Amino acid sequence: MSSIADELAKKQKEISVSEFFERNRHILGFDSQVKSLIMGIKEAVDNSLDACEEANISPEVLVAIEKVDANEFRVTVEDNGPGIVKNMIPNVFGRLLYGSRFHAVRQSRGQQGIGISATVMYGQITTGKPATVVSKTGTDDVAWRMDIMVNTKKNIPDVLKEDPFIWDGKEHGTRIVYYINGRYVSGKQSVLEYLRQTAIVNPHSRITFTDPDGKRTTFERATDKMPPATKEIKPHPQGLELGTLMNMAKDTRNKNLSKFLQLDFSRISDRLAKEICEKAGLDQLVNPGKLNLEEQKRLLVAIGAVKIMAPPTDCLSPIGAQLIKKGLRNVLVDVRPEFYAPPVTRDPKVHSGNPFLVEVGIVYGGGLTKDSQVQILRFANRVPLLYQQGACVITKSIESTDWRRYGLEQRGGSGIPYGPAIILVHVASTKVPFTSEAKEAIANLPEIQAEVELALKLCGRSLKTHLNKKETKSKTRVKFEIVQEILPMIAQKSAKIVGKPVPKLGGTITKIMNVVWIDDAVAFEKGRHKIRVSIYNYTPQSQKFNLHMVLPPGSFDYKGLQFFPTEVRDDGKASWELQKIASTDRLDVNFALTGLNKDDYDENEIYSSGINPVMIIGAEPLPGDWDVKGLEITESVETPTTEDEEEEVDYDESTEALNDD
Amino acid sequence: MSSIADELAKKQKEISVSEFFERNRHILGFDSQVKSLIMGIKEAVDNSLDACEEANISPEVLVAIEKVDANEFRVTVEDNGPGIVKNMIPNVFGRLLYGSRFHAVRQSRGQQGIGISATVMYGQITTGKPATVVSKTGTDDVAWRMDIMVNTKKNIPDVLKEDPFIWDGKEHGTRIVYYINGRYVSGKQSVLEYLRQTAIVNPHSRITFTDPDGKRTTFERATDKMPPATKEIKPHPQGLELGTLMNMAKDTRNKNLSKFLQLDFSRISDRLAKEICEKAGLDQLVNPGKLNLEEQKRLLVAIGAVKIMAPPTDCLSPIGAQLIKKGLRNVLVDVRPEFYAPPVTRDPKVHSGNPFLVEVGIVYGGGLTKDSQVQILRFANRVPLLYQQGACVITKSIESTDWRRYGLEQRGGSGIPYGPAIILVHVASTKVPFTSEAKEAIANLPEIQAEVELALKLCGRSLKTHLNKKETKSKTRVKFEIVQEILPMIAQKSAKIVGKPVPKLGGTITKIMNVVWIDDAVAFEKGRHKIRVSIYNYTPQSQKFNLHMVLPPGSFDYKGLQFFPTEVRDDGKASWELQKIASTDRLDVNFALTGLNKDDYDENEIYSSGINPVMIIGAEPLPGDWDVKGLEITESVETPTTEDEEEEVDYDESTEALNDD
Repeated sequence: MSSIADELAKKQKEISVSEFFERNRHILGFDSQVKSLIMGIKEAVDNSLDACEEANISPEVLVAIEKVDANEFRVTVEDNGPGIVKNMIPNVFGRLLYGSRFHAVRQSRGQQGIGISATVMYGQITTGKPATVVSKTGTDDVAWRMDIMVNTKKNIPDVLKEDPFIWDGKEHGTRIVYYINGRYVSGKQSVLEYLRQTAIVNPHSRITFTDPDGKRTTFERATDKMPPATKEIKPHPQGLELGTLMNMAKDTRNKNLSKFLQLDFSRISDRLAKEICEKAGLDQLVNPGKLNLEEQKRLLVAIGAVKIMAPPTDCLSPIGAQLIKKGLRNVLVDVRPEFYAPPVTRDPKVHSGNPFLVEVGIVYGGGLTKDSQVQILRFANRVPLLYQQGACVITKSIESTDWRRYGLEQRGGSGIPYGPAIILVHVASTKVPFTSEAKEAIANLPEIQAEVELALKLCGRSLKTHLNKKETKSKTRVKFEIVQEILPMIAQKSAKIVGKPVPKLGGTITKIMNVVWIDDAVAFEKGRHKIRVSIYNYTPQSQKFNLHMVLPPGSFDYKGLQFFPTEVRDDGKASWELQKIASTDRLDVNFALTGLNKDDYDENEIYSSGINPVMIIGAEPLPGDWDVKGLEITESVETPTTEDEEEEVDYDESTEALNDD
Repeated sequence: MSSIADELAKKQKEISVSEFFERNRHILGFDSQVKSLIMGIKEAVDNSLDACEEANISPEVLVAIEKVDANEFRVTVEDNGPGIVKNMIPNVFGRLLYGSRFHAVRQSRGQQGIGISATVMYGQITTGKPATVVSKTGTDDVAWRMDIMVNTKKNIPDVLKEDPFIWDGKEHGTRIVYYINGRYVSGKQSVLEYLRQTAIVNPHSRITFTDPDGKRTTFERATDKMPPATKEIKPHPQGLELGTLMNMAKDTRNKNLSKFLQLDFSRISDRLAKEICEKAGLDQLVNPGKLNLEEQKRLLVAIGAVKIMAPPTDCLSPIGAQLIKKGLRNVLVDVRPEFYAPPVTRDPKVHSGNPFLVEVGIVYGGGLTKDSQVQILRFANRVPLLYQQGACVITKSIESTDWRRYGLEQRGGSGIPYGPAIILVHVASTKVPFTSEAKEAIANLPEIQAEVELALKLCGRSLKTHLNKKETKSKTRVKFEIVQEILPMIAQKSAKIVGKPVPKLGGTITKIMNVVWIDDAVAFEKGRHKIRVSIYNYTPQSQKFNLHMVLPPGSFDYKGLQFFPTEVRDDGKASWELQKIASTDRLDVNFALTGLNKDDYDENEIYSSGINPVMIIGAEPLPGDWDVKGLEITESVETPTTEDEEEEVDYDESTEALNDD
């Protein structure tokens, strides 16, 4: 018996982290020839962008892949970042779990201190060659060149060669050159695609790529404005765990509880600290390090029991509606989608002390294929996620949303929906909980899933509104054409034949239609968006109601305006009072928007009030949360407001009926 | 500028592996309250089973969960394993990346030396309490009890308390008790379900579970036979990478190349070593440690160029067809599936030096729900995988198989198919490449995907055969009943009425049917399977052809046999020569099988030869790869053999037609 226990004991030994990852490189994402090539570049580019942003430098990144032989490549990634001080270079590139961002509560691409050294390691595993790192800081006159390998047995860097040199023309920056086995491909999961998507969500950076055939592609800056630098914050108390609290209490420099709470966490004020201490029955001046398990527990409960402000947003850097739309257009190259749902950016929430926020955009129709699953674009902290879609909370959230409510096909109301649509989701956080060190998928944390699902619903609703509008229009379109073109023609022809004057058709037409028909158009001319809204009164009575539109804030152009709106708000909500349109009459509302790019406005959002909505084709009833002043409103029908779950259900059920088949 | 580089430099620091996992606990699978509870138990049970098997002890595992408060639980896992020697206990339970199985090329559940210490760490993070470990080896008179915590800053164990004691009645074994935050649930992803599935694929172990309500469930041993102990082997040269080769060459004790190749790798003979050296243009006696990069490369190329035997199977421990079937039945409790496809166990293949094999089983029909996705059961090294299905190569392989060919519904021929089926897949390997340390999903390695897909196809084909048979039968069933019951009845009645003798119907019947109808049955009586195959000749001519069946090897019972087969092979393939069955005549083939469990045989697999298959209902044409001796075969129609892609395509296209809608 002993023999076995002892034998096993003999085998027991420590495993170095690099040794671990050498054998489990697939955990780092190096699990196929194609992927490995992308992974390495991804890690290097992430670092370059992070470094530049930390130094507030507009990133200038060069990526080059050269073919060495059948499946060996030489990869170069160079940036104009602040550079790395000499004695740090070996550890940064030659040692796993070594980095500067791990302990910071702040949004950044890299965090774990694994990526780039893992790349160096994988390169040496597959080619036996070291990586060459070149770096220069702004103040040093010389740059340093080092050949580095990872000593996997000990997880320490081996520097094979180091020498200073003059990096002519280079103020500061870093370059890494490494050899790696891989396979270069083009298409959906390729280096080029990864760089393209990266450029889309990092419009402040300029990325140049040279592929193995020497073909050069440059993604120019879309803006010189750097994204607001993300601020480092203290952990947010929400979702704090006992062990973490105990460690913090043990290590804190603040030896009284109240100060500890105020200074080691974000969003805890003097007042709140007091409240917490009272709730926990603890003295504000007690040394947090001295609390016993019971007291710690009480403290944690107390923290959970008080109302704490949401975390500050400035530690996060969302992509923003503008860029999401741009991004989507960019991906869609020549498919012309019929509809872009206004992108949604949610307020920050917290997962175990880490602020995060969710953004969603949806495009629909046009050249997108109808009979396949919707395309999903995933981003985390402005980094595109190309792999492990099935493992990602983003996918899970999409699957568990009932898209039939929003006009997409979905068997049994779960799973990835089918239809001509693309769904983009971005999760930004001071700590994105990836499912593995490869950072390819976001773990399925309940807090995050809830937020993503909510954002999807909001975006889905605008999609649904669009589809409803489209449907009702197309239904009446036929009628419309009959009364607009065919009837008059018949009238004329027959009149001519019988040699009688052309009869008035108004009465007949209104009998057939009996609706107010709203027809609208947008045209972009000489930097202005020209908008026309035509109202046809095809009812037997004269009509009088209010017209409302949502326009880009501050874009309304009063110049040469005929028919003035009753109000145009700062938030872009505009209203017109339509006085008495006689039966069979037509009224046109014309105006223009200025100071927008062509893409910024392409579909009118039209609402009506003061009239029974069933009589109107081409305008949605005015939402209940839009309170219109100075206009008499009768019979306005409410549609649900976003957060109101109760109403939402009604709404959804009623619309579901339209899609359930 | 410098300031920034320097600032960043200041922040650079090493991250301890436990610190890393403390912050990235979701990577270890601790990402939800429900899951965390299961994860911890999984890690402890894996260790217990591994230890018992290494010591060749039939495992006896006790698992108990007690509720401490709202979401804190006290978990106990105890085994009868060899125990752990005292001075090893702290590191095994209190230090990450410390273990005995990491460097062994051999199948085991645990490998990384992370799981159990991660559990201890997560427990202390969420409850602040240490884990208590008790262990006794066979030779020590005393057991040791230790309270252990992980020092996450340094990744070393803190032993808070240790004392010896007499563990009465316990020869040897280990027990761990830890506190953890979690949520206890029942259902598909629960502790009970995990233990049940574990018991299924580890029938040699006895597992007792006590849930928080004190309810005790025991999964008794299904066998006292231990699974053949898996042997530790040398890495297989296939898929070897340069860096790995270089490290091995550097570290080897064998200072001449030929010996190095023979002794440090499996399956390299003296002869083969010679061949490799020649191909590489290297002296057999050269010191492998002294080879330069170029020579190493040549060596690697040479290794890849020679033909190397598949790895030995005895390093792997497949579940086996028998148990897979049993397992499936067990999962299906009261749903009575109509069909169990004979499980497939593939021969071992290699992924980067590590042998692996794939097993697949499929059940169909009965009470399984028709309108939902098929259920997928995943196992790796006899451990059930309950989470991250979407991330797993098993799922990927199922999705990329065209199941329409095998009778399941699948939109566009990809994605998880729909239908009343369960697909079980087991991957066994000396190194299962999991996507993360949580060991929930297998990484998407091309070699593994290829094997899984092949196994799925094989199993899928038997499913298809079954469904075809079912279809054709049901089609003719109606006719059959008419001629069997209704026609005769009509004849009698009408005869009676007109007072004439009952007319002979043979002629009429054959005109209506014009097929040979085979009707078969299986009954289990007194430990014997009684089989009846009835052949009705409903053709105008007399028929003469051969009948073939696939029976469990060695089960055919000659006792009291009337009609002898022309041959019964060792592999269970049996053939009968049917001499001249006159038109409208019926011939019965009756026999029995002995020495089988009821479940071992439940559906006859019947083939025909020597007759135009279109004339036969109830038997498939004899496959082309089944060469029948001593029987004249005319017009036998070939069905494809497994490996023959060419034929497969034809076959599949033809059958696809049946299912495409």
